[in-house]
Amino acid sequence: MTLSASHPLMDGRTADSPLISAYRGQTPSRRPVWFMRQAGRSLPEYRRVREGIGMLESCLQPELAAEITLQPVRRHDVDAAIFFSDIVIPLKLAGVGVDIVSGVGPVLDRPVRTAADVAALPTLEDAALDPIREAVARTVDELGHTPLIGFAGAPFTLAAYMVEGRPSRDHLGPRTMMHAAPETWAALANWAAEVSGQFLRAQVEAGASAAQLFDSWAGSLGRADYERHVAPASARALDAVRDTGVPLVHFGTGTSEILQPMRDVGVDVVGVDYRLPLDEANRRLGGTVPLQGNIDPALLDAPWEVLEAHVREVIAAGEAAPGHVLNLGHGVPPTTDPEVLTRLVSLIHSIDVTGGQ
Amino acid sequence: MTLSASHPLMDGRTADSPLISAYRGQTPSRRPVWFMRQAGRSLPEYRRVREGIGMLESCLQPELAAEITLQPVRRHDVDAAIFFSDIVIPLKLAGVGVDIVSGVGPVLDRPVRTAADVAALPTLEDAALDPIREAVARTVDELGHTPLIGFAGAPFTLAAYMVEGRPSRDHLGPRTMMHAAPETWAALANWAAEVSGQFLRAQVEAGASAAQLFDSWAGSLGRADYERHVAPASARALDAVRDTGVPLVHFGTGTSEILQPMRDVGVDVVGVDYRLPLDEANRRLGGTVPLQGNIDPALLDAPWEVLEAHVREVIAAGEAAPGHVLNLGHGVPPTTDPEVLTRLVSLIHSIDVTGGQ
Repeated sequence: MTLSASHPLMDGRTADSPLISAYRGQTPSRRPVWFMRQAGRSLPEYRRVREGIGMLESCLQPELAAEITLQPVRRHDVDAAIFFSDIVIPLKLAGVGVDIVSGVGPVLDRPVRTAADVAALPTLEDAALDPIREAVARTVDELGHTPLIGFAGAPFTLAAYMVEGRPSRDHLGPRTMMHAAPETWAALANWAAEVSGQFLRAQVEAGASAAQLFDSWAGSLGRADYERHVAPASARALDAVRDTGVPLVHFGTGTSEILQPMRDVGVDVVGVDYRLPLDEANRRLGGTVPLQGNIDPALLDAPWEVLEAHVREVIAAGEAAPGHVLNLGHGVPPTTDPEVLTRLVSLIHSIDVTGGQ
Repeated sequence: MTLSASHPLMDGRTADSPLISAYRGQTPSRRPVWFMRQAGRSLPEYRRVREGIGMLESCLQPELAAEITLQPVRRHDVDAAIFFSDIVIPLKLAGVGVDIVSGVGPVLDRPVRTAADVAALPTLEDAALDPIREAVARTVDELGHTPLIGFAGAPFTLAAYMVEGRPSRDHLGPRTMMHAAPETWAALANWAAEVSGQFLRAQVEAGASAAQLFDSWAGSLGRADYERHVAPASARALDAVRDTGVPLVHFGTGTSEILQPMRDVGVDVVGVDYRLPLDEANRRLGGTVPLQGNIDPALLDAPWEVLEAHVREVIAAGEAAPGHVLNLGHGVPPTTDPEVLTRLVSLIHSIDVTGGQ
């Protein structure tokens, strides 16, 4: 796969954008910022268009998914759109029985626990991804020079939902499977890598200028387990888009101890959660990659001067890295006042990009 | 407060036990092992005595709490009992409206969010702790030479429940309060430190030979927040029992990044969760304290040979530390086969204490 000449990165629409420049380690024209979960429940316009429409359904209606993806860009002037979807959409599109249960999260009709369960998993047909391609195409048409970031859940996170059958705190099921039945685990992780990669590829083909792999639950793993049982699958998911040359970003919460192996699956940018200062993250990564992060979402609800001081600290800590894209160190909480986010974008854009104010 | 002459540590009943020896950095007569949550849902005899009795109620019936505390000692031959209680019991005894909701966890009648809410918190009267003292006294009477470990939730964990009003994943409420209203936070953390300390002290006075502070949610904090907004309160909780001379243990999950400041609140032993190998934990702590941990609970459900190999790795990694008490790197999962735990204790006791098998 190579990108077509009309792809936003190829025709010049987004190649010089602040986000893509920073992701490539070049000096951006302004400090780029976007927010994980910027499209979603914090926005009244989102709650309006979602009324009466289930979560997964809203991801699969191209016009609606594009609208939701665009809402925060229009409102906040952020430097990127992040494709609105759900981590389990590739499962759903493959035909795995899954739904989002209010107050719980993704719940599978049948958990995947045995070698036979894994062997019986369906294939994700390429045509099933058409609604994703259409949503992305609609989105990038309206975005113009603002890049769209494609997104997928990483294989461990997908597989954790599949083994547990629902969200869990400790992810004991998948972590047991790695050791108790390593071949079954490897087969499941490969299946998840396959659908995760297909989902990412569809977004990039259709116009996404970058791709972020979210490993929401990787923080539950010790480094040895991550390197042995998870990293190969994550690398494989990313292999699906590697030859396109779009910048690849990798993020998970509670992953301070595994930043290096998360980089080493082969990504251009590492996202850092709110717990680890960026200067320390950069030190651990040997200054090799631009960083993304890591405003503490808990501070969004603090008085403005407290939040501003925190953001300036984050920017100062990020100066050492070979590139920095401002973001939260976790997703936007649903209760966040969207006006705070708009003001934050404006503050960040006002701070000179070559260091200091 | 000093321990009475009839206290198990003072009259020699537990002073030379493998647990207390290892906690003090001395060579124990056998490798000590106990399991966090060893008293509880994994045991059929526990499920039997709890039938029809609510969680908090069972903690407050001295005879029942003692029975539940003793069950795993009788069954598994572990080297310590851990007092059966719930992290919110000190709140309940102070008169805060709280109950355990099945499938949710502790839920407060009214969350504590403002300075006025904190100012209105009741005092924990010493007499309210009598059922705790009675349960402990009954327990140590039967335990003989096996030490009882007293336990309390750390101030941050207690305060996190109080601010959120229920369990939460990210603990945004208390983390926001630290920055948005630091004086309110400090007052709440101090209140929590006070009741946590009183709860610990009652257990030690009544016969507990050691005390463990559990900071279940401390892993949600970056190091700077932990040091500034949490560590002083944890130190204060421990101050309540410091002069007794019982060994103090500190544990939280996901705390690899804050092991040093968790030690520096002033404890004798640091518990390590399953994510960080003990040799690396010992390196970070400069070899200053004995360690407790850190068998991965996910491995309890793996084939025996996989579990045994893992336990031997944990023991080998712990050799470098100035003392090692085997434990899980998190609590016993409710679905654990108790026979696996019994077999594990026997394996651990069979491995020579001076290194190797």
